[in-house]
Amino acid sequence: MGLRTAEEFRESLRDGRRVYIYGEPVEDVTTHPILKINTETAAGDFVLAHMEDPEIRDLFVVPHPETGEPMSRYFDPPKTSDDLEKRLRMIGTSIRVTGGLPFGKDIGTDAVNAIMTTAQQMGKPEYAERARNYLEHLRKNDLNLCGAITDVKGDRGKRPSQQEHPDYYLRVVDRNKDGIIVKGAKIHITGAAVANELLIVPTRQMREDEADYAVAFAVPANAPGITFICRPGRGERGPAEFPSARPVRGLVEAMIIFDNVFVPWERVFMCGEWEHSMLMAYTFATYHRFTAVSYKIPAVELLAGCAVAMAEMNGIERASHVRAKLVELAGYVETLKALATAAIKSPVMYGEIAVPSPLITNMAKLHFASHYHEMIKLVQDISGGIISTSPTYLDWMNEDLHGYLEHYLGGSPKYTTEERLRMIAQTHQTVASAESAHMEVVTVHGEGSMEAQRMMIYAESPLKEYRDFALAAAGIEARD
Amino acid sequence: MGLRTAEEFRESLRDGRRVYIYGEPVEDVTTHPILKINTETAAGDFVLAHMEDPEIRDLFVVPHPETGEPMSRYFDPPKTSDDLEKRLRMIGTSIRVTGGLPFGKDIGTDAVNAIMTTAQQMGKPEYAERARNYLEHLRKNDLNLCGAITDVKGDRGKRPSQQEHPDYYLRVVDRNKDGIIVKGAKIHITGAAVANELLIVPTRQMREDEADYAVAFAVPANAPGITFICRPGRGERGPAEFPSARPVRGLVEAMIIFDNVFVPWERVFMCGEWEHSMLMAYTFATYHRFTAVSYKIPAVELLAGCAVAMAEMNGIERASHVRAKLVELAGYVETLKALATAAIKSPVMYGEIAVPSPLITNMAKLHFASHYHEMIKLVQDISGGIISTSPTYLDWMNEDLHGYLEHYLGGSPKYTTEERLRMIAQTHQTVASAESAHMEVVTVHGEGSMEAQRMMIYAESPLKEYRDFALAAAGIEARD
Amino acid sequence: MGLRTAEEFRESLRDGRRVYIYGEPVEDVTTHPILKINTETAAGDFVLAHMEDPEIRDLFVVPHPETGEPMSRYFDPPKTSDDLEKRLRMIGTSIRVTGGLPFGKDIGTDAVNAIMTTAQQMGKPEYAERARNYLEHLRKNDLNLCGAITDVKGDRGKRPSQQEHPDYYLRVVDRNKDGIIVKGAKIHITGAAVANELLIVPTRQMREDEADYAVAFAVPANAPGITFICRPGRGERGPAEFPSARPVRGLVEAMIIFDNVFVPWERVFMCGEWEHSMLMAYTFATYHRFTAVSYKIPAVELLAGCAVAMAEMNGIERASHVRAKLVELAGYVETLKALATAAIKSPVMYGEIAVPSPLITNMAKLHFASHYHEMIKLVQDISGGIISTSPTYLDWMNEDLHGYLEHYLGGSPKYTTEERLRMIAQTHQTVASAESAHMEVVTVHGEGSMEAQRMMIYAESPLKEYRDFALAAAGIEARD
Amino acid sequence: MGLRTAEEFRESLRDGRRVYIYGEPVEDVTTHPILKINTETAAGDFVLAHMEDPEIRDLFVVPHPETGEPMSRYFDPPKTSDDLEKRLRMIGTSIRVTGGLPFGKDIGTDAVNAIMTTAQQMGKPEYAERARNYLEHLRKNDLNLCGAITDVKGDRGKRPSQQEHPDYYLRVVDRNKDGIIVKGAKIHITGAAVANELLIVPTRQMREDEADYAVAFAVPANAPGITFICRPGRGERGPAEFPSARPVRGLVEAMIIFDNVFVPWERVFMCGEWEHSMLMAYTFATYHRFTAVSYKIPAVELLAGCAVAMAEMNGIERASHVRAKLVELAGYVETLKALATAAIKSPVMYGEIAVPSPLITNMAKLHFASHYHEMIKLVQDISGGIISTSPTYLDWMNEDLHGYLEHYLGGSPKYTTEERLRMIAQTHQTVASAESAHMEVVTVHGEGSMEAQRMMIYAESPLKEYRDFALAAAGIEARD
Repeated sequence: MGLRTAEEFRESLRDGRRVYIYGEPVEDVTTHPILKINTETAAGDFVLAHMEDPEIRDLFVVPHPETGEPMSRYFDPPKTSDDLEKRLRMIGTSIRVTGGLPFGKDIGTDAVNAIMTTAQQMGKPEYAERARNYLEHLRKNDLNLCGAITDVKGDRGKRPSQQEHPDYYLRVVDRNKDGIIVKGAKIHITGAAVANELLIVPTRQMREDEADYAVAFAVPANAPGITFICRPGRGERGPAEFPSARPVRGLVEAMIIFDNVFVPWERVFMCGEWEHSMLMAYTFATYHRFTAVSYKIPAVELLAGCAVAMAEMNGIERASHVRAKLVELAGYVETLKALATAAIKSPVMYGEIAVPSPLITNMAKLHFASHYHEMIKLVQDISGGIISTSPTYLDWMNEDLHGYLEHYLGGSPKYTTEERLRMIAQTHQTVASAESAHMEVVTVHGEGSMEAQRMMIYAESPLKEYRDFALAAAGIEARD
Repeated sequence: MGLRTAEEFRESLRDGRRVYIYGEPVEDVTTHPILKINTETAAGDFVLAHMEDPEIRDLFVVPHPETGEPMSRYFDPPKTSDDLEKRLRMIGTSIRVTGGLPFGKDIGTDAVNAIMTTAQQMGKPEYAERARNYLEHLRKNDLNLCGAITDVKGDRGKRPSQQEHPDYYLRVVDRNKDGIIVKGAKIHITGAAVANELLIVPTRQMREDEADYAVAFAVPANAPGITFICRPGRGERGPAEFPSARPVRGLVEAMIIFDNVFVPWERVFMCGEWEHSMLMAYTFATYHRFTAVSYKIPAVELLAGCAVAMAEMNGIERASHVRAKLVELAGYVETLKALATAAIKSPVMYGEIAVPSPLITNMAKLHFASHYHEMIKLVQDISGGIISTSPTYLDWMNEDLHGYLEHYLGGSPKYTTEERLRMIAQTHQTVASAESAHMEVVTVHGEGSMEAQRMMIYAESPLKEYRDFALAAAGIEARD
Repeated sequence: MGLRTAEEFRESLRDGRRVYIYGEPVEDVTTHPILKINTETAAGDFVLAHMEDPEIRDLFVVPHPETGEPMSRYFDPPKTSDDLEKRLRMIGTSIRVTGGLPFGKDIGTDAVNAIMTTAQQMGKPEYAERARNYLEHLRKNDLNLCGAITDVKGDRGKRPSQQEHPDYYLRVVDRNKDGIIVKGAKIHITGAAVANELLIVPTRQMREDEADYAVAFAVPANAPGITFICRPGRGERGPAEFPSARPVRGLVEAMIIFDNVFVPWERVFMCGEWEHSMLMAYTFATYHRFTAVSYKIPAVELLAGCAVAMAEMNGIERASHVRAKLVELAGYVETLKALATAAIKSPVMYGEIAVPSPLITNMAKLHFASHYHEMIKLVQDISGGIISTSPTYLDWMNEDLHGYLEHYLGGSPKYTTEERLRMIAQTHQTVASAESAHMEVVTVHGEGSMEAQRMMIYAESPLKEYRDFALAAAGIEARD
Repeated sequence: MGLRTAEEFRESLRDGRRVYIYGEPVEDVTTHPILKINTETAAGDFVLAHMEDPEIRDLFVVPHPETGEPMSRYFDPPKTSDDLEKRLRMIGTSIRVTGGLPFGKDIGTDAVNAIMTTAQQMGKPEYAERARNYLEHLRKNDLNLCGAITDVKGDRGKRPSQQEHPDYYLRVVDRNKDGIIVKGAKIHITGAAVANELLIVPTRQMREDEADYAVAFAVPANAPGITFICRPGRGERGPAEFPSARPVRGLVEAMIIFDNVFVPWERVFMCGEWEHSMLMAYTFATYHRFTAVSYKIPAVELLAGCAVAMAEMNGIERASHVRAKLVELAGYVETLKALATAAIKSPVMYGEIAVPSPLITNMAKLHFASHYHEMIKLVQDISGGIISTSPTYLDWMNEDLHGYLEHYLGGSPKYTTEERLRMIAQTHQTVASAESAHMEVVTVHGEGSMEAQRMMIYAESPLKEYRDFALAAAGIEARD
């Protein structure tokens, strides 16, 4: 079947999936006022694969390693530093070109890669074979997929087996010769309602008595027993917003209920091997944080760009405190890029698959998450209160008010009042809106909390090497 | 007339004022779906003055110094540390009791106090007399008022007299025997559309050639030539929000256009005395930052409280990193309170009027503004991604979904699932919503930017005393 | 006997005490090249009590509550906010007047106050009586004393009873009708070798099986079995240092060995009451941190003063980044003062004795400790590399070099080259010397580590009040 | 002549140079108690070039590009990313192997590279030729050299031409057919007194009327008119320090006086071309900051290692707050390494010479300088007050005290008391000594202040690209 078109993708979503939003069932996610935004954002991936510009096409499309047929680069697991760099650029380019993040194959293949690397370690050839077959299935049908990891967790001070009821972590409730039955719920699953496939991996290390929770598998989004409960996000631009030729982009979060869902064995990638649950969660986390770094780079460039533009429009770009703040913003952005470069340059190889340096990847995620709010503050500071109090487009178009606004809301004469108001609206969207507040939370919790990164940095840092260097300087032999 | 009731206050707003929102004129600010929220929030002040609890009443109501009639404490300029402390408690109590900030008399009297202290320095007895008369007018009619300071400013790299056109700062365009005519616009004026009176002061120090910009005056909100262009804020709770017995509270920002507005001389408090513009702006700023400290204390207690409650509901309150974060939050809150205490204990006296220590007041404002985003991050971190992805009340009430949500969204067994969802909704509102993003901007820019506080700290700090101490330690005589 | 003179104090130290430094026994601590610096620094307290300036004298000397005889204010436990404020000023003044910190009675009475407040809670009247008698003994003989708290602790991951040997915490090894025998070591005891009396309190909460470690007592510094092992500190100014009329001041740290030391019952203030060990350690810590705040205020003023003076001498005091850094320094200093003010204004009363607010006192200590290194960095940054590379006084006095240095090491013409070199030397001493590095460690660990303050802030903060406020906002009843 | 031995290097320093320390002339820098430490530290470079280990030798020695004779790799200007990485490793290895930083050729060739790249831009072939010849001279004679850049600067608020006298910046005072005469002083010149050659470059951008200050040249260290005034550093280990098989290493700072020094034209690399002074200062700064990053990596690994070792010895390595602090330390170290990797991967080419990315190199220097004090604080915090109060080796060796110390100063049983004391002494040296305080200042000011890095980050960041991205998002065309 090969590369699908955006229209084929849309069509594939009309498959009887069970989706709710605002407490109402959704007939068609491609036309629902909110969910269509996510549909079109995800469709960007299929648009990019058909672009005529060869530079873009070659970034997004590669030949199938055996058949030579064109397929999405996402379905080609990275084998070298160069592959990792291409993946980084691919994600960045998709944002720059489509104006949104066509979330789906990126996080989906983070999970695929985690499954494939773990399968190699588990010593059960059937898992490796199923993973390969599943990848082939994705390639052949050019499927959009989502990786679902986070369980609802109940009381977070307790392990899965200690909870009030056994369902706070997704688990196997039955198994037979054809497959398994799973029950549970995954939460914070971005773009889930417009995926073709759901790929489920465990959220954490499981212990021996938690073997039923050590389960990984794939199902189509319309499998019986699956319900998506969506968090409302934004819809089309309203009349109070400045109109724009650029379409609105956005992603919708979902909670996915698995109400005794059947999964055939050929789609089961872990089932009870609790001692490998850690590796799968850990590898997924590393890949996924690298994906996050990839899409955060343009996101924080936009952030910094709002500050530069607003500084100019306010006429303060030469004030020394503003320059100092722009230097902080630039340092934040460029440190993220430099960490990405360094993570790519020192990958860890799992068999043939290249994992970006877990240490540096986690440092990069922690870098952008731990300083993000400070950067938001800098942009708000430079931009002025106007980003939160500026009149709407309806005021701008009102005859009685237009003259006042034109007269009074100018800034630097280098830009017109309307340009300034447009930039104010963009900056409001970026740092002072419901979406920007949501993005703060996503930055903190997406791809795992900052404590999760700190744990991995602790595990991956050469602390013993530092110690032995210090002991040697003191003339003491190292201990272990 | 004495103390008005809330109903009298509402009635007084139906006075023909010219208010726009979403590009549409507003017939009645007390019934408009958005503006009525602000009306009712402001009405809280009138409710408080009539409360039966003597402790509250005595905090909000004082006898008129001459007539002994009850009047609002706001209209009694502070003369002692104790008065300042009562004012601090009054603002805090109004938030705790009404659930909102009945913004109006507080910032309004910040401006009244600035006018009165400046009048004493200007050597023109008519100004002092007008200020006294105006205060009497406020007392007698128990008026809600707003202090308007921030001009639109145009190119912020240029002074008022260097701009593309002369109207970027409000100014006197004509004067005659009856009064003056003013033109310009004030921006970021919170709650302006529901004030009875507008009190205008200059936004900065003016120079000799900018004397027309050195103007301070009062006008009623329905004076001819005045237009309010309101930034939409939130309206009543929608069906997707968890219902509550507590009413929605909120304030609406406005830009106020002064299109050749006439002001009679008895309401003019500065007109051309550019050399005193600095003192007025500076004194207003100090009072106003103290008011801000007063209302921020409960605001940040709520912030910290969301973190404590969510930590318990998530079952992580004993995790060491969570305790460390709660200590940071508590330190932030309690440092703010301690700075308020210290500011009260060392006031500066202007004649009979006590100004809270300008140095410590500015430090307190800078404290809460510069660390606020970091605190938001901590609350988001502790609360979990759920505050941004949780299903809505409509999902909760849907029969097909209710059971799933009840089953899967529980946390610590100390609380019910519904309680957890309510607390999640509250925390969303506090740190992850359009309103919380707006509050970040307000925290940065309200009452002047952080650079403005740094300038005042520089001016007020005993840097020379430190220096002389160091010179003495080095055996060097001080220079000046 | 009443107030002693400095000479009487010196004489009292020639009492056969067993002191070592650099591995050598010290004959006379008042003449040893290093220890005499500490002797003279401590002697400052006795100088101050005899000053003619009535303002100073009244600060340092109060009448005995019963006899009316003059005695040191340190021996008058604070009963009001005003007493606490006087104590704060007394310590600050002693530094300003003598150029050093006459450490001894301050920390000593921190321990006395802890013993007295704990005695009230223990329900054994003999302890309260002994404490009163001991205080009377101190008053009558005007003794310099030191509070010793920190045990050597061994493996800090283990409790006293779990260690390799039982002596890592000081303990009672025997008791008889006359008194007790104690064994152990106390460490980091500043100024111990020049104290008349040692007052020992437990370093932490003890458990039931650690009752032998719950011991508090006083002994004279020359009691048999006591050895002081001193850490060398600085001696008199050497020829390479710029000479000065101001004497060198400094304190020497000691480790104190208790090798089966006998303590008579009348000097035992706790012996086995493990359930009160926490209170004693905790109360001592609060008092002691308040003492630390008192002496840190002039210390950080000097720090900031070096930055102001060096900025002027380098001619950069108007550079915007320098002003921003001076604002940071001033904010650091003035926040410390404001916290001290607030701690004084809300004391906790233990019977008649006023303890400064434990919450705010701990916040104040954490404030100065957690930001101290950042402030050091700012002073180093403003001062320039010259503070660490400047030629010595011997170069300055060398005929061949003097002309070069005079010509080349000038700065702003407002000061002479020699003045600049003196200020450089002072700043070197303050932020770039062995002593300043030591002070960094003292700032971190003196009066307990920052984690200790965080624990007390956690315990003392109104976290539950915040929570209940947030629960109420969400319409939820509080739980406990 | 080729590669010299350490002995040949020592011999070459007995050349009549004029060196002062403590106001006394130094006969022989190779035997003076303080300067010999620097001599031996620098001699490490010559030791390394003769090591038998081929891996080390190949890192430090390369064949002459024309003759094939072995020469120091420092004298081979980097042409590729790989060359830059080798240089980074060479500096790191020299520290790891010799225990000190053999400062000299590294900073010296930073200046050589700056001269060579600038010569290419100046359009005067004689400069390029002289630079090549000089490099050949260095190669042939295997000379240790020092780059001297920082002028004494006088009033830093004024430009060179505005100062009280014209000598605050080094300048040409005369020129004739043979060469030029220069006058002035360079300051903070590390290791200058043991260099063979001094290479002088301008400290900043000069203007047209400051052409005499735009001068770069080389002279031998014993040239007439040159005087070194050295800041005393540390000498051999004293008896109070724990003995060690590892020699003491250290560098001595000098102020260099140029009292009408003659420089022949073949050693003049800039003379009046003020418009190129900026490029030379800027390029030197970039190279030099990269050198600094190279030597800081092992320095901060040692820092972190002290914390890890002390945590283990104190038995607190599993405490959660300690782990959090170790993560911070590791993040600091590894971010520095990652930035170095990224700087290497994106060099800027000046003709054939590769300059590490100026943006990332400056970010890396700012990273280590701006967080260094915070890291020192963490190490002090983890290590405990004992690093500043521990008894000396003389106490340890004293028979009366040894048993006490052995008994009481143990920590975790994994290490002996003596090991713990040695590690304490090492940590004291690293974070709590005169040397560590000096290193704080060096970290702030060495290779230019943090403001200098911020200026270069501002200049090198793609701020306009960010802006254009934001403008495009807002639908606005970019302006320039």
